[in-house]
This record gives sequence, C-alpha cells and structure tokens, in this order.
Amino acid sequence: MTSEKIVENIYKEIKEKITSYNGKYKLSVILIGNNPSSEIYVNIKRKKAVELGIEFDLHKYNDDEINQEQLLQLIDDLNNDTSVNGILTQFPLNKKFDEFLVSSRISPSKDVDQVNPYNVGINLWGKGNKASCTAAGIIKLLEFYNIDLVGKNVLVIGDSMIVGKPLSSLLINKNATVTIANKYTKDLKNYTKNADVLISATGVKHLIKADDIKEGSVLVDVGVTKENGKIYGDIDYKSTIGKATYVTPPTNSVGPLTVAFLMLNIIK
Amino acid sequence: MTSEKIVENIYKEIKEKITSYNGKYKLSVILIGNNPSSEIYVNIKRKKAVELGIEFDLHKYNDDEINQEQLLQLIDDLNNDTSVNGILTQFPLNKKFDEFLVSSRISPSKDVDQVNPYNVGINLWGKGNKASCTAAGIIKLLEFYNIDLVGKNVLVIGDSMIVGKPLSSLLINKNATVTIANKYTKDLKNYTKNADVLISATGVKHLIKADDIKEGSVLVDVGVTKENGKIYGDIDYKSTIGKATYVTPPTNSVGPLTVAFLMLNIIK
Repeated sequence: MTSEKIVENIYKEIKEKITSYNGKYKLSVILIGNNPSSEIYVNIKRKKAVELGIEFDLHKYNDDEINQEQLLQLIDDLNNDTSVNGILTQFPLNKKFDEFLVSSRISPSKDVDQVNPYNVGINLWGKGNKASCTAAGIIKLLEFYNIDLVGKNVLVIGDSMIVGKPLSSLLINKNATVTIANKYTKDLKNYTKNADVLISATGVKHLIKADDIKEGSVLVDVGVTKENGKIYGDIDYKSTIGKATYVTPPTNSVGPLTVAFLMLNIIK
Repeated sequence: MTSEKIVENIYKEIKEKITSYNGKYKLSVILIGNNPSSEIYVNIKRKKAVELGIEFDLHKYNDDEINQEQLLQLIDDLNNDTSVNGILTQFPLNKKFDEFLVSSRISPSKDVDQVNPYNVGINLWGKGNKASCTAAGIIKLLEFYNIDLVGKNVLVIGDSMIVGKPLSSLLINKNATVTIANKYTKDLKNYTKNADVLISATGVKHLIKADDIKEGSVLVDVGVTKENGKIYGDIDYKSTIGKATYVTPPTNSVGPLTVAFLMLNIIK
C-alpha cells in the first residue's frame, strides 16, 4: 500500500491553487533543541515548501536560548503577522515547555498541525475542512485502496496528540469501531489478532509480526526506528505481507502523505 | 455500584461555594420542541438548581417558534449577559438546527455541557478543570469504587458527543485501552465479552445480558428506555449482577451524577 499516486494528486491540486493565488504563502516553523529526528522532519518540510514556492520561515533556537514566555510571544507575533499562513511548532519540545499551552496559543486558522484544542474538538465533532496531517493522510490512503471502515475493528496503537488521538477521532466519525491502545495496554496481541485494520505509531521496531495479526487484515505503519543508518517500522513488513491484504512499507508511504497534507493545510 | 455518597459530597462542596460567593449563580437552559425525555431532564435540572439557590432561566420554544439564526442570536445574548454563569441547550434538537454550530456558539467559559469544540479538544488533550457531565460522573464513580483503569480493556458503547466521545477522551487520558463501539459495530459480543469495564449508552433495553460479559467485569449503565411507565437500562441488572463485580442499577446511579456535575460546572 503506497502513497505515490495520492501524493502526486495532492501536489497537483496545491500547485493549481498556488498558481491561481495572487500572493505568496508562508509557513513559519519553530524548531527548538537539537533532536535529530525533528531536524530531519523540518528539513523535509522545508524542501517541499520551497519546491512548491511556499516561503519557509524557520525560527530555530537551542533549548537554553528561549523560554516558555518568549515562545508564546513568538507565536503571538506570528499569529498577528498577516503574511504568515501557517504556524507549526515541531514536537516533541523539551520538558520545560508546555506543549498544551503552546498548541493552545497558535491561532486556530494558522494551526496547520491541528493541535489547538479548538481544532482538536472540531475533528472529534467530525467537522471542519482540515485535519491533523498524518491522520488525514492515513484516512486518504485507506479510502484510495477502497478499504471500508464502517463497523470494522480498527486498532490504533499509540495515543499521541499528533497521531493516535486525532486519527481515532477521524476513524470514529467514519463509523469504525475504534480501539486506542498505548504502552499500558495489557495483552496487546489480543487486540492485534482481532483487528481488521491495524495502525501502529509507537516507534518500537517490529512490534507487529505475522503471528500477531489477523489473516487478511490491513496494516498501516507510522512508526520509524533508526538503527545503524537503516530505517525500521513498527510492522515487520516482510513477515506480514503474505498474511495481511495490505501493508504499508516502512518508508515512502505514510511519511510523504503527512508532508502533503501539511502543505495542503497551509493553502486551505 | 451507586452514587448517593459521591453526589452528597459534590452537593456539600457546591453549597459551601455558593454560601461563600458574594452573588447569585444563574443557569440558562434552552429547550426547543416537545421531546418528553428532554422535558423530564430539564425539569430534573430545574428542580436541583432551584434547591441549591441557582437561578434557573428557561428559554422554551416550539420547533416552529425559533429558527437557527434566532437560536444563535439568543446564545449570543446569553454569552453577553454577565449575570449568566452557564448556558445549556438541551439535545437532541430538531434536525433543522445544526447542533455543531449551536455548540460552537456557546462561550467556552459558560459551556456547562462541554460541547463547544474548544472544550471538547481540551478534554481530549487531558487538560482543563471541567469535563462533560456524564463522562465526569462515570470517571468519579469508577474512582470512588477504586477501579483501576490503567491498561484495562474499557468498552464504551455509543459514540454521541454528549456521552460516548467525551467519555472516551477522559478514559484515554486515564491510560485505559479504550474501544468505542456504535450501531455499526459487527459482532458486539466479541467486544463485550473481553471488556474489563463496559459502559453502555445506547437506549437499547437490556442490550447486555449475563452471557455477553466477562466474569468479574464492571458494568456502567447510561441507557434509559421507558416501557409502560417502567424504566429499563441497557444492561440487564438482574442477570449480570452475579457475574460482574459491579453493576450500576438502571436508575439512581449515573443520572444523579450527571446532574451533580452539571451543577458543579455552573459554579466552577
């Protein structure tokens, strides 16, 4: 289950909108600290934005260069800057920052990651024309492959505000029967073996193997683990691909969708 | 599993707060149409508010006496009225009204039912000092009976914005493994038989019988069905009480908690 065609269509839509827009789009990204994964993700977003002609405005700080109050002030400034269309704070932040307060401060209309509580609530209501990027990407992927969700047993592993929770909101509103598991879940296998659709976002290498899944199920991998320069997913692709109907590969599937939906949220 | 003691404590807290408050609390309730259940619920709320010395300000209309625009204007007026502490629109509304727009219009600070998307999102973030009344009541009930939720298989049947969804948000943030089922769920029994805690909010009389549940589980009944003047719950109390560890009776358990948390949300 790959996303090339979907991503291609989204960028076609974005390019048309950008061409017909009488101005310039700008994405402001706040990156604090030196988490290597965060730096990689921000670079991917920068590259794609620049490629599309979206101005990329990076605010980069070391953890000791900025405090919570200054961060909130920076967000206020970006909220008030009419040239900025989208604001994104790359998570996770250092523990000295409150991610909830930071998310709450981003103006709902510029909140491209959909972390402001107002947007979180709209998504649980099943309304609005934007959704959290990875969650929206996964729903699009399942729809593209004609995977019916109504009444299906759908398991989401991972309960973060960036993936698991907003994804559960969208799935509930697609009338799936949704289970949201986390690191406290007892006997995870009891859930994975019954799931028609399993979506894993934990960062635990090969958490899900052939023995753990239901025959004919659909597996979506959001986890990324790096080991000796190689990338592994939460799902053991090689062992599961023969038993499941669809499995996303550890790279080039959900990741590019997340970036594409981010770009879409900027111009919406 | 009954709520008398918890409810008593909540009212003690409310009375103390009201006594020490140098003013008057006011709850404005909007009731449209003639749904008999809605009228009963509003009456229960009125009675309790009056008993506590909270002014009860009822805005009652027939379905043809008010349109969407006028309803939103009424909410705006109540938002702007500094004498009003809490605003509640009794759901369900006639299909001609948009419950999402109505909920979105209620000022988050006066939204005692916690249906405004901003409050819905705060609850999914696991923040804030208020929560949806029934959901908050159920969490309190489980805590009162020392029922540990961490890692437990918790099933919520019913996905409404008034019970199922906000309850799932609270349970996820208690680190339970939460499944939210609805009328589209296939093979509901597969879920009910594995649930350590089962909460049903469907209004389907005796949907859950002894044969459907796990030995030693905890059952919470939110459903209400009236038949020939008798009230039935979603859970067959008599048949399940021997097999489950705890079962809430069809009356005098969750209902009074909902009302108590509503009153608490007014004075908070």
